[in-house]
Amino acid sequence: MRLSQYFLPTLRENPAEAQIVSHRLMLRAGLIRQQAAGIYAWLPLGYRVLRNIERIVREEQDASGAQEVLMPTIQSADLWRESGRYDAYGPEMLRIKDRHDREMLYGPTNEEMITTIFRDGVKSYRDLPLNLYHIQWKFRDEVRPRFGVMRGREFLMKDNYSFDIDKAGATRSYNRMFVAYLRTFARMGLKAIPMRADTGPIGGDLSHEFIILAETGESAVFCDRDLVDKDILGRAIDYAGDLQPLVNEWTAQYAATDEMHDAARFETEVPAGRRLAARGIEVGHIFYFGTKYSAPMNAVVSGPKGEPITVEMGSYGIGVSRLAGAIIEASHDDAGIIWPESVAPFRIGLLNLKPDDGAVSKACNDLYATLRAKGVEVLHDDRDLRPGAKFADMDLIGLPWQVIIGPKGLAAGKVEVKNRATGARSELALDQVAATFAA
Amino acid sequence: MRLSQYFLPTLRENPAEAQIVSHRLMLRAGLIRQQAAGIYAWLPLGYRVLRNIERIVREEQDASGAQEVLMPTIQSADLWRESGRYDAYGPEMLRIKDRHDREMLYGPTNEEMITTIFRDGVKSYRDLPLNLYHIQWKFRDEVRPRFGVMRGREFLMKDNYSFDIDKAGATRSYNRMFVAYLRTFARMGLKAIPMRADTGPIGGDLSHEFIILAETGESAVFCDRDLVDKDILGRAIDYAGDLQPLVNEWTAQYAATDEMHDAARFETEVPAGRRLAARGIEVGHIFYFGTKYSAPMNAVVSGPKGEPITVEMGSYGIGVSRLAGAIIEASHDDAGIIWPESVAPFRIGLLNLKPDDGAVSKACNDLYATLRAKGVEVLHDDRDLRPGAKFADMDLIGLPWQVIIGPKGLAAGKVEVKNRATGARSELALDQVAATFAA
Repeated sequence: MRLSQYFLPTLRENPAEAQIVSHRLMLRAGLIRQQAAGIYAWLPLGYRVLRNIERIVREEQDASGAQEVLMPTIQSADLWRESGRYDAYGPEMLRIKDRHDREMLYGPTNEEMITTIFRDGVKSYRDLPLNLYHIQWKFRDEVRPRFGVMRGREFLMKDNYSFDIDKAGATRSYNRMFVAYLRTFARMGLKAIPMRADTGPIGGDLSHEFIILAETGESAVFCDRDLVDKDILGRAIDYAGDLQPLVNEWTAQYAATDEMHDAARFETEVPAGRRLAARGIEVGHIFYFGTKYSAPMNAVVSGPKGEPITVEMGSYGIGVSRLAGAIIEASHDDAGIIWPESVAPFRIGLLNLKPDDGAVSKACNDLYATLRAKGVEVLHDDRDLRPGAKFADMDLIGLPWQVIIGPKGLAAGKVEVKNRATGARSELALDQVAATFAA
Repeated sequence: MRLSQYFLPTLRENPAEAQIVSHRLMLRAGLIRQQAAGIYAWLPLGYRVLRNIERIVREEQDASGAQEVLMPTIQSADLWRESGRYDAYGPEMLRIKDRHDREMLYGPTNEEMITTIFRDGVKSYRDLPLNLYHIQWKFRDEVRPRFGVMRGREFLMKDNYSFDIDKAGATRSYNRMFVAYLRTFARMGLKAIPMRADTGPIGGDLSHEFIILAETGESAVFCDRDLVDKDILGRAIDYAGDLQPLVNEWTAQYAATDEMHDAARFETEVPAGRRLAARGIEVGHIFYFGTKYSAPMNAVVSGPKGEPITVEMGSYGIGVSRLAGAIIEASHDDAGIIWPESVAPFRIGLLNLKPDDGAVSKACNDLYATLRAKGVEVLHDDRDLRPGAKFADMDLIGLPWQVIIGPKGLAAGKVEVKNRATGARSELALDQVAATFAA
């Protein structure tokens, strides 16, 4: 993409309304714009990030055996009366009346709807286990939305729902999501630590939050430092096999959010040198809640002998739009965002330092064309601006690599390559750039 | 995907509520389920189709130079007061009050919002032309929703908005969309005919509807038969060049919807043998409307001499979810859906005719693994069912190719291959199947 034609309205000043760094940087880097309190539009650069996050979530869900559906945003109130949650849910639920005065709502979550889809479509134990997910916009009418996409009202969430005939099956489904979540966050360059969680209004008796560490995190967390260094991506995963040992390995050590924290246990179980008290951001949450919805809503299959079995359910959520902010909280510096390669909107920023120099512009245009032909995603800053402004913008938007072409280097056949994360700079022969990045 | 593990709740009986064939088939083939009047959930097979349609729309938008954003579903009423449409829009607008009693609405379209995003982000004529699109759920509170996803209340739409400094530029933007739309629909196997349209409530002085022909179409259409046979996919397109000759070519012949039809002109201009009176379904609509929104909403850029220029706008819509139904209306038979390859949920249905025969099951499993390894999308019917039920389901869901393996053929090293569209059957050596479809 040529920056001269790209809609990237960056801001020089810090917007007054933004209290945390990710919100500030998302506004300044032209990723989002607020449309109403807690409601954002995603501009081209931001939407590329959001779609990358969504793609990783989808790939890991698919790999785990979950099947993708899409449920609508608007639901009927009657559906929520079946579970008893219509009256129980607070003012966070956006309640709506349609033109015929029927009571509707903008879905904050989908346990009820998926349960009716399940009970209408599945009749036999032979069709289980089943795990259905969707990635859809939700609405929670927060009394005081803030922190940009971290606590918005309209937000994109991946939620899924597992159905099993017994607790053992439900635990296997839970474990598959546990591992899929570890992989999902790790692929985004995040250190996500599963922490035993309170089950809250969704109910049930087994639940973990996935927390990433960031200085600006919303809550205090406590864990064994060893957990931070554990790496799931190097491990072979067989979703058809027994994942309990892997789950045990990730839950054996102490890890707790503020509300579940037990200071005495922390000090007993964790050696002083490994005690980590930090701040964290919740990016995922998984629940096993048994028959909490299937019993009142009559989600029953027939068993091997024709007997009715009320299915055991779990639900699992990842805050997809929230992750865009969370990744920035975990990965930025004073100059701007530092995108991990897997979610970066473009892999390379190509800087033309002297657009009015024919040789420099030709080298830039040729390299841009070559990289694109090789499938490398490049944002080409061909604007008629001073180098200083280009450097500042490129650091601000945080693409992983900067390839910088100016008249001096070019005369020697050289370009400069800068790694955004480390700041390391190196010289590369112009004719080696494409091969280096296409590899 | 193994059908024994796939959530595909097909129906044997025609659902009473479905009046048109696409609605009937989408319910029977397990593509969608109604959640409230005019509001649908997309089940796994249906969502694969929807995503294929969305992908083609996106690829053609990107190729045309449009840039993708994502605007939220919920908008503030004040935004619509700026253009004067808040009071003008009828009861189709779903109006909402949030917990602070602020007036909001579920967006039926996005002219107002994109205009504010533009005016906040673009200040100079040098940043034009600009064309921003998004693919997002919309809501129109139809008084009597019907025909399934063809006239639902919550629907997925691709809409975009072009910004130019003068009418000549706006016409070039319009022409790019005109051609992109021809390509988009052609890639989905549809014959879409552009027809001069009334500009209606969006306003403006240039507009075309893109109509596909289907016996069950919602409105009468009249055109020169030659238009049906024109093929855009064989033409080289340069979006940076002058597309006017191509647009002229597609608009030179008579084509009109009922409301714009001029019977006398039709008979004068079109020779009797080429006069086509048929029924059509609108799948796209493009508008040039000048300064209708930019003037009241003050979307102004500075020109070459610093003078203020009120930008010229156009908007362009494709009914993404509607297309799933429209494609079925245009492509089905008595046995079920006939998906064009480009949007089919899977390319191949692999039928195991005797799951309790070890050799047959091994051949099926091996072929399934080989095809998947080659990136071919296969739905493997490994269910313990009679062949007749498998044939019926496979015809119903309409995958382009059926590969049928039974004990007799297998003994001779043969499988049967059926083309769903033509019904043509052929024998193929088992060891040639993968190479045939991977090619």
